Amino acid sequence: MARGIRRGRNIKIYGDIKLYACSGNPELAGAIARYLKQPLAGRDILHYPNDNIGVRLHDSARGQDVYVIQSTSRPVHYNIFELLILLQTLRLDSAGRITAVLPYLAYGRSDKKDQPRVPIAARLMADMIEVAGADRYMTLDLHAGQLQGFFSIPGDVLTAFHIIVNHVKERLKKMTDPVVVTTDLGFAKRGRNFAEQIGTPLALIEKRRQIKTGVGTEALNLVGEVKGRDVLLLDDEVDTAGSVSEAVNLLKAEGANSITLVFVHAVLSDPAADRLSSLPLKEIITTDTIAIPEEKRTRLGSKLTVLSVAPLLGEVILRAHEGRSVGQMFNE
Amino acid sequence: MARGIRRGRNIKIYGDIKLYACSGNPELAGAIARYLKQPLAGRDILHYPNDNIGVRLHDSARGQDVYVIQSTSRPVHYNIFELLILLQTLRLDSAGRITAVLPYLAYGRSDKKDQPRVPIAARLMADMIEVAGADRYMTLDLHAGQLQGFFSIPGDVLTAFHIIVNHVKERLKKMTDPVVVTTDLGFAKRGRNFAEQIGTPLALIEKRRQIKTGVGTEALNLVGEVKGRDVLLLDDEVDTAGSVSEAVNLLKAEGANSITLVFVHAVLSDPAADRLSSLPLKEIITTDTIAIPEEKRTRLGSKLTVLSVAPLLGEVILRAHEGRSVGQMFNE
Amino acid sequence: MARGIRRGRNIKIYGDIKLYACSGNPELAGAIARYLKQPLAGRDILHYPNDNIGVRLHDSARGQDVYVIQSTSRPVHYNIFELLILLQTLRLDSAGRITAVLPYLAYGRSDKKDQPRVPIAARLMADMIEVAGADRYMTLDLHAGQLQGFFSIPGDVLTAFHIIVNHVKERLKKMTDPVVVTTDLGFAKRGRNFAEQIGTPLALIEKRRQIKTGVGTEALNLVGEVKGRDVLLLDDEVDTAGSVSEAVNLLKAEGANSITLVFVHAVLSDPAADRLSSLPLKEIITTDTIAIPEEKRTRLGSKLTVLSVAPLLGEVILRAHEGRSVGQMFNE
Amino acid sequence: MARGIRRGRNIKIYGDIKLYACSGNPELAGAIARYLKQPLAGRDILHYPNDNIGVRLHDSARGQDVYVIQSTSRPVHYNIFELLILLQTLRLDSAGRITAVLPYLAYGRSDKKDQPRVPIAARLMADMIEVAGADRYMTLDLHAGQLQGFFSIPGDVLTAFHIIVNHVKERLKKMTDPVVVTTDLGFAKRGRNFAEQIGTPLALIEKRRQIKTGVGTEALNLVGEVKGRDVLLLDDEVDTAGSVSEAVNLLKAEGANSITLVFVHAVLSDPAADRLSSLPLKEIITTDTIAIPEEKRTRLGSKLTVLSVAPLLGEVILRAHEGRSVGQMFNE
Amino acid sequence: MARGIRRGRNIKIYGDIKLYACSGNPELAGAIARYLKQPLAGRDILHYPNDNIGVRLHDSARGQDVYVIQSTSRPVHYNIFELLILLQTLRLDSAGRITAVLPYLAYGRSDKKDQPRVPIAARLMADMIEVAGADRYMTLDLHAGQLQGFFSIPGDVLTAFHIIVNHVKERLKKMTDPVVVTTDLGFAKRGRNFAEQIGTPLALIEKRRQIKTGVGTEALNLVGEVKGRDVLLLDDEVDTAGSVSEAVNLLKAEGANSITLVFVHAVLSDPAADRLSSLPLKEIITTDTIAIPEEKRTRLGSKLTVLSVAPLLGEVILRAHEGRSVGQMFNE
Amino acid sequence: MARGIRRGRNIKIYGDIKLYACSGNPELAGAIARYLKQPLAGRDILHYPNDNIGVRLHDSARGQDVYVIQSTSRPVHYNIFELLILLQTLRLDSAGRITAVLPYLAYGRSDKKDQPRVPIAARLMADMIEVAGADRYMTLDLHAGQLQGFFSIPGDVLTAFHIIVNHVKERLKKMTDPVVVTTDLGFAKRGRNFAEQIGTPLALIEKRRQIKTGVGTEALNLVGEVKGRDVLLLDDEVDTAGSVSEAVNLLKAEGANSITLVFVHAVLSDPAADRLSSLPLKEIITTDTIAIPEEKRTRLGSKLTVLSVAPLLGEVILRAHEGRSVGQMFNE
Repeated sequence: MARGIRRGRNIKIYGDIKLYACSGNPELAGAIARYLKQPLAGRDILHYPNDNIGVRLHDSARGQDVYVIQSTSRPVHYNIFELLILLQTLRLDSAGRITAVLPYLAYGRSDKKDQPRVPIAARLMADMIEVAGADRYMTLDLHAGQLQGFFSIPGDVLTAFHIIVNHVKERLKKMTDPVVVTTDLGFAKRGRNFAEQIGTPLALIEKRRQIKTGVGTEALNLVGEVKGRDVLLLDDEVDTAGSVSEAVNLLKAEGANSITLVFVHAVLSDPAADRLSSLPLKEIITTDTIAIPEEKRTRLGSKLTVLSVAPLLGEVILRAHEGRSVGQMFNE
Repeated sequence: MARGIRRGRNIKIYGDIKLYACSGNPELAGAIARYLKQPLAGRDILHYPNDNIGVRLHDSARGQDVYVIQSTSRPVHYNIFELLILLQTLRLDSAGRITAVLPYLAYGRSDKKDQPRVPIAARLMADMIEVAGADRYMTLDLHAGQLQGFFSIPGDVLTAFHIIVNHVKERLKKMTDPVVVTTDLGFAKRGRNFAEQIGTPLALIEKRRQIKTGVGTEALNLVGEVKGRDVLLLDDEVDTAGSVSEAVNLLKAEGANSITLVFVHAVLSDPAADRLSSLPLKEIITTDTIAIPEEKRTRLGSKLTVLSVAPLLGEVILRAHEGRSVGQMFNE
Repeated sequence: MARGIRRGRNIKIYGDIKLYACSGNPELAGAIARYLKQPLAGRDILHYPNDNIGVRLHDSARGQDVYVIQSTSRPVHYNIFELLILLQTLRLDSAGRITAVLPYLAYGRSDKKDQPRVPIAARLMADMIEVAGADRYMTLDLHAGQLQGFFSIPGDVLTAFHIIVNHVKERLKKMTDPVVVTTDLGFAKRGRNFAEQIGTPLALIEKRRQIKTGVGTEALNLVGEVKGRDVLLLDDEVDTAGSVSEAVNLLKAEGANSITLVFVHAVLSDPAADRLSSLPLKEIITTDTIAIPEEKRTRLGSKLTVLSVAPLLGEVILRAHEGRSVGQMFNE
Repeated sequence: MARGIRRGRNIKIYGDIKLYACSGNPELAGAIARYLKQPLAGRDILHYPNDNIGVRLHDSARGQDVYVIQSTSRPVHYNIFELLILLQTLRLDSAGRITAVLPYLAYGRSDKKDQPRVPIAARLMADMIEVAGADRYMTLDLHAGQLQGFFSIPGDVLTAFHIIVNHVKERLKKMTDPVVVTTDLGFAKRGRNFAEQIGTPLALIEKRRQIKTGVGTEALNLVGEVKGRDVLLLDDEVDTAGSVSEAVNLLKAEGANSITLVFVHAVLSDPAADRLSSLPLKEIITTDTIAIPEEKRTRLGSKLTVLSVAPLLGEVILRAHEGRSVGQMFNE
Repeated sequence: MARGIRRGRNIKIYGDIKLYACSGNPELAGAIARYLKQPLAGRDILHYPNDNIGVRLHDSARGQDVYVIQSTSRPVHYNIFELLILLQTLRLDSAGRITAVLPYLAYGRSDKKDQPRVPIAARLMADMIEVAGADRYMTLDLHAGQLQGFFSIPGDVLTAFHIIVNHVKERLKKMTDPVVVTTDLGFAKRGRNFAEQIGTPLALIEKRRQIKTGVGTEALNLVGEVKGRDVLLLDDEVDTAGSVSEAVNLLKAEGANSITLVFVHAVLSDPAADRLSSLPLKEIITTDTIAIPEEKRTRLGSKLTVLSVAPLLGEVILRAHEGRSVGQMFNE
Repeated sequence: MARGIRRGRNIKIYGDIKLYACSGNPELAGAIARYLKQPLAGRDILHYPNDNIGVRLHDSARGQDVYVIQSTSRPVHYNIFELLILLQTLRLDSAGRITAVLPYLAYGRSDKKDQPRVPIAARLMADMIEVAGADRYMTLDLHAGQLQGFFSIPGDVLTAFHIIVNHVKERLKKMTDPVVVTTDLGFAKRGRNFAEQIGTPLALIEKRRQIKTGVGTEALNLVGEVKGRDVLLLDDEVDTAGSVSEAVNLLKAEGANSITLVFVHAVLSDPAADRLSSLPLKEIITTDTIAIPEEKRTRLGSKLTVLSVAPLLGEVILRAHEGRSVGQMFNE
């Protein structure tokens, strides 16, 4: 557990921030570093011919307040390992306090045994991050808030929806009768929170196994009203965009006026980019928690808006470092 | 971690089942014992004048396969402590394997930090049950399935909705245009599952802070259609029945034909019984995971149907004891 | 484990002291706060209708040197839980160092298996306090000093007898042939220490099962001399005052001149106040480790002297906070 | 934690007992083995020139129910290490269940911080035994019963006083007005229990620092009556016999008729044998929890009676092995 | 820790063996299963579009004695994760005992900090395997024997050199003046053991940084004699075959008659197959701890001899399962 | 895990260094203290008649940055215990950070199971040091570098060969054709490093069981050339000097010109001093990681050169204390 010290209101309570970037999302790590006016600490990450990873820190991290930034997006297992090995290296180097900064945490959807004889891989993620040496963690928009309880170490679980709300409020000025719709019932509550913040009604898409027509097929129902309205279609992440495609088709069939897709984590597995570019979407609003390859950005073209979480993460790192409240940032 | 042994298909792999009942729900413990044709093991639970609890086992539990049954309902903290002390007593007595059987697990709603500077009390529950000595746990209809990941020990997390579905299917025969409605968006997905199993549509009640009219007040919206329909109003637990009251009023206002209330855990804090008895409900269907005091049963009268989870828990204990699949019970 | 820092002789080594009071003994917490000239930190403790506790800190405790004050007296299990939940809340909020300040620790008498198949509840207490998140603990006059070994975390185990000795020395001036008597043989050694400090002889009361006269009854013998002497009757805590009553009767029968009752922890379960008020006691000397309800204070009237441990705990908190020796306070 | 299995009343629930003797008390280990009609398992204990210990088991202990017998008497640290290394060897060899059988546990008197800045070495003992690999422990007459709470693993803490009582009852037939006296106030309660079992009164010796006459000297007082009586002088262990000598002198001065010394653990550090042989003792009754060197036995001559705890430990090992109650042995 | 039971000499002490194969080395897993006449247990390993792995067991593993076979060869991080997730799934499914069978353990060469600020990734491997749920492990020819000490759980660390020796002894019949040479000084001791077993002398290749000629280049020296001899060039694993190439060139330059390459783990990263096929090697003797792709086998042609470790692992699994000595297999 | 703080380049980040010396190597501890211009902190180590150790700190260590210096040389088990008890005392006294400084770590050769059914005592050492309370450790020239992976806490593992190299380089000026020879193949790699640093060739001594001539006898072979050369015979430690004697005889027989013996840890068990003094050695170069008794120093006379590691350990303690890089000391 982290040990801090505080002697007065205006002084830093830990040493200089030391930021390490893994290779999962270098642009975001760089943007956080710029926000903090702090260079990324030097480290070599070696790729041996036998597929093993090697790490070597350029300077000692003894007694420092260290932040390791890694998005555990594709290649997922490589990225997780890179993170774990860097965490262990820092621990063995007697770092003062180690915080794993995880803009996107993989395996968040494997969070319960909803059928027998399956794993809870998200708990394994938490266990590994702790056993490797993290004292704290930071992350954004977990698939379920309960994942915080999988960790024994303290953490800051943030949301990018504050940032998105600000952007969407601009767009709302030109919309008529906007309505928030969630692609999945598991996201209903956060859909409601979003709708509440921007002052619109809520509708929900319900997916149901089609027992009569055959195994494996699913039918979508709309619960609520979208006819003639401008829809904000909401989710936490978009993977292959299969559900999104079905949702958009349903919404169009139900008479939606326009559809704006809003989500935090741009997983965008194939053929997501193809699907999204062919759908009748007005705008695709997402963030940079996961690095979006240039080629996909190009495919999605001008419809794509990527909001940066770097100022958010940078500010939270600063406050954690100085022992100041994070909740206050959001008037909480 | 549990250690088992198996020598063939038809023999028991652990010693005789040894069942212990704490004092939280003696009727259910008795019913489980009857299902298993196994007496409850003798133990004294002493209440000292200084408010402390004492425990003494009548016989040794050395090497036995022990199941401790406790509903952590009101008085919550007393019941939790009784459980923890009995678990520790059994561990110190060198019991072979200890399973905490928790038909109702308290503090399930404190499962995430949805605002800063609050606890995750459900994780504390898991930690205490483990530190006291449980090797495994069993429970029913957790507030969120993710709570499984709070435990480091393996567990069987069951649902009473299989039992409820069978009962409701009988009732459906006399209903016209039935519809499932959930009182809370957080329960939307399980509402969908229920509706899918009984083949009805789904509607949802959305609660929203009324920012304009004043602090703290909330407004309810119905998402979906209930006009002229027989409603099955669904939740996992009913506490003071405040939300239920509001929901019933809304459903009536929206033209529902009849309303049947369905939930698993009958917390029924005051003034739940008063509220429920005065509401225009056709039937109140719940289970015995929490003991319902006679006085409240009387107040709710003939509208109340209490289905027993004893056969379910008894069968799962038997299968756990014999090292047989629990999933198979549900064709999973 | 706590990590401290020291840069010179006269500066504080941790941040500002942050004191939290649970609801077990608000007067004592307030007195400690006044001693330290430090306000109690704001926190809400919520009581939900379902008997669950909620906690919310008003301000962030990030990196602070936190002290949580709770007497785990009646209602014992509620008070323990309140403590545990507050500890966890502070840990999850990334507090710098957390010390549980426990003027009275419940379950101290369940400290060994003196018969088979019973718990060691005091060890469970220690395990729970650690698992909830305390880095250190402080307490007063444990039932047995060995309870320190139940904790894996460091602690300061203090005694209020230093305070009591000062008070008693005043009284001694007016006594003739004073003698210290303990109510229980398990307290004999600490009775000797007390007698040594005030320079009086020691007598002991021995309790023995009366096998001849019937099951369960006990006979008291006096070992030593009290005839014509002023007796200081000593114990660590007084619960129902049953043993005290018997002891006083025996001492009177053996010719004691006067009897002054001395003990640290005023558990005072019913009918202690009735019993004590009707006994021929000259004075009842105790402390405020447990809050004594106004109604009981009234019943005990002017005979009752309550010495405050607030300056002792306040000073120890200060020294712990500044990394100075606690032992030095007692010339040790 | 131990995992057992039970299939019926008359069958063994673990594999064959596998007994290992360390070198601390080979006679006792041999006697236990004879009681159990079970050979001691072969193991080499090597003493390397560099003072290190080596261990090699003759046969595999895979899956066996193993008992390691070691008295941690002089040479204390060697004997502790021999035990720890053998425990680890068995754990790494995948033994099924490992029980440390400790007729005498060293460092029992370092059980609390009765002054600042001292260790609690008994807790360190417990921690090391657990970290080396013991699943359970067995021991006899701990210096304080609370030491059970230092262990996280279950244990059987036994007493040799049952055996001693049977022997003393024979002697009582020839005594007039027998009285039990304890050498130390910390042993008062167990003295009372002993007196209760044999039906005699109790007197106590109180030791007190002599503040007036000089630093470090102590004065002894007798609390109670011994004049003209046959005294049973009781303690848990005798180390240098310094306290015993003083006690005997006091008792003689107070007019005791005869003195019989009774204790469990024959530590007998120099010059205990010299002192004891020169004291006017009628009989010295002790046990074989610690091996008494032949030379000391000779010096103490016919006054010495050594009762064996082998049948007690053997029977408890058997019951632990078979999953039967140990408490029942003592009608508890 | 594993808990076993044994009732007699000839009966199995655990339930039926349950073998699970991960996807790292299906041929070897199949061969082990055939050796044990035991089918591989059914499990689905799913590859989601977002690069995550899913696992589902076909049947319950409750109380079974489970063995999970995985070679953590390329793709290393995927294979490790597959193993960890399967281990966790089995633990959550209440498996009786879980043994991770790891014919090849990745990251074995990252076993110490031979320079500052680097990881000990092999320790991380051990920690993760334990945290995921393994009770025991099995592996072959660790890079350093000391890696056993990285695990807290017991394990069987085997060697394939027993198998290789038998094969080489055949070849020796046709060799003149054979000599064992190791490619690396760190392997010198195991080279000596091998030479001892087959009765040949030993020579060593010493690699040294060339400080004069430039940074990073290395020079090879031969310590010992190979002129006119048939060389057995020995290592534990061959990665890119860079060192092997240099060694072969040196040996040829020093007048070796023929060179047979012998190693256990066929990592064979590119361009190993190219290099090896072009070297003047008489035979390449290795094992199937790592699956060698068909394409590489073809490239190496008839020079390649792959000995199977399946009978060795199968027999050790059988003995572990039945609680019999593994050491005895090797007359140890 | 260590918690540090850093506010700028030139200020100390922890409190004043507090050095404690156990009794294993007081001269070295004193020399470290002189290097650091810091007195050794006062502590009493008591030896009770019953062979137990007592510890009492003179002053409080609350919040201090503590270093405990102990060489675990002969008497090994006493010295280990003294260390463990002092570590625990400091932990219970709420020390800020505790580093165990172990110039010589016993049991380093028991680092793997090279045969079945033996311990890995070095892992037990690591476990005990951690359980007693060390947050970090420092040590010199471990028998195998992999022992670092036995610890879960971070450590600084140093080598005295930097110091020795400087000394040897002086000697080299007067040598002709110097060659480094290692006594054991397990030390080959470090022999190569040493040879590389001083720019000489390497030869190796290979020990082999003599199967033909009888059980237990071993034959030595020289691999490489020493004829007419000045030999530097290298090892990490010298125990009884048996291997050294054989090596010297072989080297002389092979025509070595002169032999200088070089090793770090002077275990020097009997009859090492006799053997070494009678061997034709030019110089014996070692260090003071282990205290060499005056009597042995005299026996070895002027041939003996003891280099001090005090400046090395002192500097590393200083850098650890100030949070500066240790690796930089060696240009790493």
